[in-house]
Amino acid sequence: MDYIKNAVKLRRELHQIPELGWGEFCTTAKILETIEPLGWKTFVGVEQIGLDAVMGRPEDFVEKSKKRALEEGVDPTLIERMHGYTGTIAELDTGRPGPVTALRFDIDCVGVEETDLKDHLPNKENFRSRHAGVMHSCGHDGHTAVGLTMAQWIVDHKDQLCGRIKLIFQPAEEGVRGGAAQAASGLLDDVNYLLGAHLAMMCPTGEVCVYPEGVLCTTKLDVRFKGRPAHPTMSPHLGRNALACACTCVSELLGMARHGKGLGCINVGMMQAGEGRNVIPVHAQVQLEVRGETAEINDFMVDQANRIVKGTALAYDVDYEVEKVGEAGELNNDPELASLVTEVAGSLPSCERVVQHKKLGCSEDFTMLATRVKAAGGKSEFFVVGADRTAAHHQREFDFDEKGLETAFGIFKGCVLKLNGI
Amino acid sequence: MDYIKNAVKLRRELHQIPELGWGEFCTTAKILETIEPLGWKTFVGVEQIGLDAVMGRPEDFVEKSKKRALEEGVDPTLIERMHGYTGTIAELDTGRPGPVTALRFDIDCVGVEETDLKDHLPNKENFRSRHAGVMHSCGHDGHTAVGLTMAQWIVDHKDQLCGRIKLIFQPAEEGVRGGAAQAASGLLDDVNYLLGAHLAMMCPTGEVCVYPEGVLCTTKLDVRFKGRPAHPTMSPHLGRNALACACTCVSELLGMARHGKGLGCINVGMMQAGEGRNVIPVHAQVQLEVRGETAEINDFMVDQANRIVKGTALAYDVDYEVEKVGEAGELNNDPELASLVTEVAGSLPSCERVVQHKKLGCSEDFTMLATRVKAAGGKSEFFVVGADRTAAHHQREFDFDEKGLETAFGIFKGCVLKLNGI
Amino acid sequence: MDYIKNAVKLRRELHQIPELGWGEFCTTAKILETIEPLGWKTFVGVEQIGLDAVMGRPEDFVEKSKKRALEEGVDPTLIERMHGYTGTIAELDTGRPGPVTALRFDIDCVGVEETDLKDHLPNKENFRSRHAGVMHSCGHDGHTAVGLTMAQWIVDHKDQLCGRIKLIFQPAEEGVRGGAAQAASGLLDDVNYLLGAHLAMMCPTGEVCVYPEGVLCTTKLDVRFKGRPAHPTMSPHLGRNALACACTCVSELLGMARHGKGLGCINVGMMQAGEGRNVIPVHAQVQLEVRGETAEINDFMVDQANRIVKGTALAYDVDYEVEKVGEAGELNNDPELASLVTEVAGSLPSCERVVQHKKLGCSEDFTMLATRVKAAGGKSEFFVVGADRTAAHHQREFDFDEKGLETAFGIFKGCVLKLNGI
Amino acid sequence: MDYIKNAVKLRRELHQIPELGWGEFCTTAKILETIEPLGWKTFVGVEQIGLDAVMGRPEDFVEKSKKRALEEGVDPTLIERMHGYTGTIAELDTGRPGPVTALRFDIDCVGVEETDLKDHLPNKENFRSRHAGVMHSCGHDGHTAVGLTMAQWIVDHKDQLCGRIKLIFQPAEEGVRGGAAQAASGLLDDVNYLLGAHLAMMCPTGEVCVYPEGVLCTTKLDVRFKGRPAHPTMSPHLGRNALACACTCVSELLGMARHGKGLGCINVGMMQAGEGRNVIPVHAQVQLEVRGETAEINDFMVDQANRIVKGTALAYDVDYEVEKVGEAGELNNDPELASLVTEVAGSLPSCERVVQHKKLGCSEDFTMLATRVKAAGGKSEFFVVGADRTAAHHQREFDFDEKGLETAFGIFKGCVLKLNGI
Repeated sequence: MDYIKNAVKLRRELHQIPELGWGEFCTTAKILETIEPLGWKTFVGVEQIGLDAVMGRPEDFVEKSKKRALEEGVDPTLIERMHGYTGTIAELDTGRPGPVTALRFDIDCVGVEETDLKDHLPNKENFRSRHAGVMHSCGHDGHTAVGLTMAQWIVDHKDQLCGRIKLIFQPAEEGVRGGAAQAASGLLDDVNYLLGAHLAMMCPTGEVCVYPEGVLCTTKLDVRFKGRPAHPTMSPHLGRNALACACTCVSELLGMARHGKGLGCINVGMMQAGEGRNVIPVHAQVQLEVRGETAEINDFMVDQANRIVKGTALAYDVDYEVEKVGEAGELNNDPELASLVTEVAGSLPSCERVVQHKKLGCSEDFTMLATRVKAAGGKSEFFVVGADRTAAHHQREFDFDEKGLETAFGIFKGCVLKLNGI
Repeated sequence: MDYIKNAVKLRRELHQIPELGWGEFCTTAKILETIEPLGWKTFVGVEQIGLDAVMGRPEDFVEKSKKRALEEGVDPTLIERMHGYTGTIAELDTGRPGPVTALRFDIDCVGVEETDLKDHLPNKENFRSRHAGVMHSCGHDGHTAVGLTMAQWIVDHKDQLCGRIKLIFQPAEEGVRGGAAQAASGLLDDVNYLLGAHLAMMCPTGEVCVYPEGVLCTTKLDVRFKGRPAHPTMSPHLGRNALACACTCVSELLGMARHGKGLGCINVGMMQAGEGRNVIPVHAQVQLEVRGETAEINDFMVDQANRIVKGTALAYDVDYEVEKVGEAGELNNDPELASLVTEVAGSLPSCERVVQHKKLGCSEDFTMLATRVKAAGGKSEFFVVGADRTAAHHQREFDFDEKGLETAFGIFKGCVLKLNGI
Repeated sequence: MDYIKNAVKLRRELHQIPELGWGEFCTTAKILETIEPLGWKTFVGVEQIGLDAVMGRPEDFVEKSKKRALEEGVDPTLIERMHGYTGTIAELDTGRPGPVTALRFDIDCVGVEETDLKDHLPNKENFRSRHAGVMHSCGHDGHTAVGLTMAQWIVDHKDQLCGRIKLIFQPAEEGVRGGAAQAASGLLDDVNYLLGAHLAMMCPTGEVCVYPEGVLCTTKLDVRFKGRPAHPTMSPHLGRNALACACTCVSELLGMARHGKGLGCINVGMMQAGEGRNVIPVHAQVQLEVRGETAEINDFMVDQANRIVKGTALAYDVDYEVEKVGEAGELNNDPELASLVTEVAGSLPSCERVVQHKKLGCSEDFTMLATRVKAAGGKSEFFVVGADRTAAHHQREFDFDEKGLETAFGIFKGCVLKLNGI
Repeated sequence: MDYIKNAVKLRRELHQIPELGWGEFCTTAKILETIEPLGWKTFVGVEQIGLDAVMGRPEDFVEKSKKRALEEGVDPTLIERMHGYTGTIAELDTGRPGPVTALRFDIDCVGVEETDLKDHLPNKENFRSRHAGVMHSCGHDGHTAVGLTMAQWIVDHKDQLCGRIKLIFQPAEEGVRGGAAQAASGLLDDVNYLLGAHLAMMCPTGEVCVYPEGVLCTTKLDVRFKGRPAHPTMSPHLGRNALACACTCVSELLGMARHGKGLGCINVGMMQAGEGRNVIPVHAQVQLEVRGETAEINDFMVDQANRIVKGTALAYDVDYEVEKVGEAGELNNDPELASLVTEVAGSLPSCERVVQHKKLGCSEDFTMLATRVKAAGGKSEFFVVGADRTAAHHQREFDFDEKGLETAFGIFKGCVLKLNGI
């Protein structure tokens, strides 16, 4: 079987059915339909989710996504098995003693409308997004395709392998939401080695980076204030002004103390408040994120944000609610695994050079899985597989050089052979 | 003809086709179809509007309203005559020398969904709103019905009258938007006497108030800030934060200096800002209103608001725009006309008592018309015609005692007889 | 004895020894030395003070004032009797049954340097302030002089009187601090009638006003925040920024909700914060006052202020302290007593006219005494005795027409005769 | 001559006469009295100062300092020569062609009271500060002593040298104020090599660091707002609230955008505002500093600060003034000179090790001189000479190991020999 061709084919199929985080019903169904017949044992729905750790998953959005999946003809029994929770963790036991190795692939897309440009490959080759307003403009279609290809390869080479292999198809990476939930399932607690990768980013085709830098810890918070309505002229004293509270809160948030040990950031990205021009505003909603170079710094920012919200709500006598809707931690790649990837990648014809350190400059909830694995004594490695791109990630003109799929597959395959080869 | 029954019938017809301000195409058509056959000369569309003074009239909303009117079967030639501007001013010349008397009736509705309660009269008597989400819950259906009845009565009694009579069917009173535009048309500049009324409010059935108090000057402003997007971690220095600017602006607005001479209020009722959690926010929109016991105080508040917006925009290096979307002035009832209304009302069987001063506590853009009339040497009077109500104005359970229509009609009729009787 | 001449003489003596509130050691000594020989029973020091209700009395200022009094030759035994608390309440029992009438005179001065203008009467007549930086520029020298003259008159006419008379020489009226403390002594709880007056204000010579209006309730607060120092570049995360907290707090305070039922004001008059340019500020101090047309409104403002301080301190994780340093309440003049003053004043040759209502526009802690008297079943009246003035109160060029002393004395005398005459 | 002993002796003499920046009249006199007899040509007063670039020099402080110097017996003709401007630049021409080398020594002290601890060396050895409230707790006494010792050594070894040597005794380094002024004199424009050093800091005795890191650019700003007074209850509309403006300004300053390319900091360290509790505040003064990892970042912060002040003043309709009272730039050590210092230091018995990079973490206005030299084509090097210390710099218990003087002298001497040896 030509695994590379298969990966490209799968990637193009997935590219046509992009789904936003926690709504990946078509995608999860496709994954299950692909790997279950191969013999993978799958954990589906709440089996692979720690419910307490679920973040940023609006119920009505989930329902709408499920409905669309059914309308598109997805097998209702699969949908039912998911119980509303997308993604899956698959396991294959070689029957031989050996380590547990997990490979992680994120499956969700981004909320941008795909470009109409004629020379955009998905347009030229006729595999553009069939879902309005959403698009795989971050390369997760490629990740998933590589994951499915690995599922096939592992089964095909099962007799050369020992130990157990797990494939983690993670939902809702965008907004760093799904990682914590899968980590909390406990299904990774026996993992010795966890590997994950991102395509493209700051690396061109032919390059692999084994220590991406500038991967920031982050926490995403939704803050809601609730006051009390009143006529602003007749009885302002009866009102409790949620909008005023939110505005003061934002000023305080932006002016919060920074940390002396490194970069800490805050952004308040959105705010909606009020019901009408002549009513003391009752509702205000603020969406923010903090980031930190280290977990300590990020925690410091989060603590401040929580305290500011609480204190400001008290000052304005309004109710409040802080919801954590996303979280990612520090990337602590294991030197042994980094060396392994360096060695494997270096041996691939499609890889021209392996760089050690290069600035990535974003957040990744692979870190949530990695932290869990590390806590249980395992090791992890997250690397970047270069691929030329036509535009920056999350842009509607984004596309990546599919040669990257070959390299990514090559590294995962090579690592599994090294780690679980008999 | 039984004018009172006619007024009730018209009120119920109008109640079924409520339209928000600047969207009263059905209502205006109904008015024109009623009074033009009677011989009233009508000013329609831009003929009765000073374009520079138009406030709070979103073009897309106007288009949608027009489309609905057409769908509901309103005569397209009428719609065309309106040129997008609702309301009308009608004139009848008795042919005899005499004063010019104008009667003003506001025609728009409120954006609330009418109640489903069975004993709500419009439900019981089957004349509830046929338009989803909007309702005549401020009594303007009654005002318009009285206006149309007066149109009939005046024509019927033309030979007993001298001078000229004008009927002003004003659009967009809610949000105090339409008055200034009709005033700026110049069509009131020859008016000697301007009369207007509101049903219900703080007066029960049988009561009339000729000096409503606490009518505040007000200005409604929409403020828009526009910044520049940037990645909040990678390049915050490239951003210009419109949300942060708006928040600081709101804090400054709420803390603006009050006036030593009397009541001045400010409310920031709504705010929307930002495009995404992890983007420096580019757009922010703030809706506010100021009020003042006098025009001087209101102007002081407006000046401060403008200065605060300008300064804050400068501090944050963002662009800004302040749009005045509503305005009302001082109510300066003329003692002579107030005496006239007192006398006329006192003689009506449906009126039990006339009170001089009673607190109304709101704003009215009748004042914009009155100010124009006064500037040209005329006099004005705005009175309240009592009517028991089932809920406060602007509530979905609002209904008023239709006996109020009789009193209102009686007063307008009586005054016209006194002012323009031969 | 010529009581009027005596009053003028005393006033000029007192004018030379102005003392700020809670530092009136010379003044109190002079009062005691004048009235004790006459047979008045005096309550001195803590005997006439409710310690829990003492406000705005800095210990170091008291010590300095005491020291100056001693240096100026004030009898040390008198100073000792005061135990650090100035003012006195004196009582005279006629021995005959009858009502208890109290007259209140405030004794402190203002912190302005007296003018050098040659035609300023105290300069011309050589009785200017001998204390640098302070001056009787509010007329309390006149009040005290009238009080001392009444002390003499009452003793001289004791055989025409019944019941008991109390003279309240109140410290620290400026900043509305001393009234509450004397009220809390309980010495007024048996008072049937309480009378007090202010010279000049909005009334010219010859006018008396018996219902001064616009006397606002007020509360004066000192707020102190305490944070934690840190190097702003090396370890900002270790700091707790009291200055930043205070600034946000001020913005919130100025924007607090107003009350729909009437005038409510807030002013933040002073702020001091920080220790050095390159240290995270540890200390911040804010001085503010709120006022309200009614006690309800004033309380509403105070509650908000307290809540805002508490919430903001929480948001910034700093310690805080709110100290009430002044308070005045509603002025509720009793109609019976107002009639009495009207009658008495009307009969005086020096009084040309008695006006009922006139706007005073300030706060008075006579109200604290009056509220206590009222709570115990008594009645009170505060009137203004007109006197032309050369400049506004609290200005360094202020002087008042001493003819006002005659009228004031005449009214107090006449009222005592009416209330306590046998 | 024993130069080391001489340096120690001088240091102890200087330690007793600490003077704050721009007030170093005694110190400057001592320098002139030491080096002028040796034959150095000196530039004094305005000869060595670019007046336009003078920052943070309050005239009244200068006068007071001058007066003290005279009282302490400093030669009045020297004081007169200074024309109010302390510091001096001295030049010695060897008469032989060669490069121009400048050595810079800062001479001012810090505003802390020296400790009373008995085992504090200046107490034990009887050379503690004779000036109340100020102390050489930053080691500049040592710097100046080394400078004076170099003056002697250079004269003693003039026949082994070529080119010209300049000694820059810089005033007002604390608060980074004096460097810019001396740079603007133009006296450094012909300098080929500029060397400067700091004692102690993060290096223990025996260590020398040639590339101190974390030297931040900084700008110190004093902001003054001026409003208009008014009675906060009677006529708040007439006021212009400088305190409110300052508070909003501070909130905006603390929340200003950071820079994506590196560390940028802001601290608002002090604020004073208002005249009284019941007056709309007229004056507000804010002291702040910004810092930046690079000049670009620092400029970005300064630009924002200026814009924020301007915009906020506009919003509150108050006047404002921004005064730059201190400034330091980037430290760009020249590799050639750094190598030279490494080599020279490495050869000294008192130097155990030379480290290349070590975090200093402060600002230095040596950078202002270095930037000027660089702009004219010269090179510069600033190094740290280790010395054990008894407490952190700027602490009242600070003292440094005088062995550092030996190393510092050794390096300057060695460099001069290398650069200007014949």
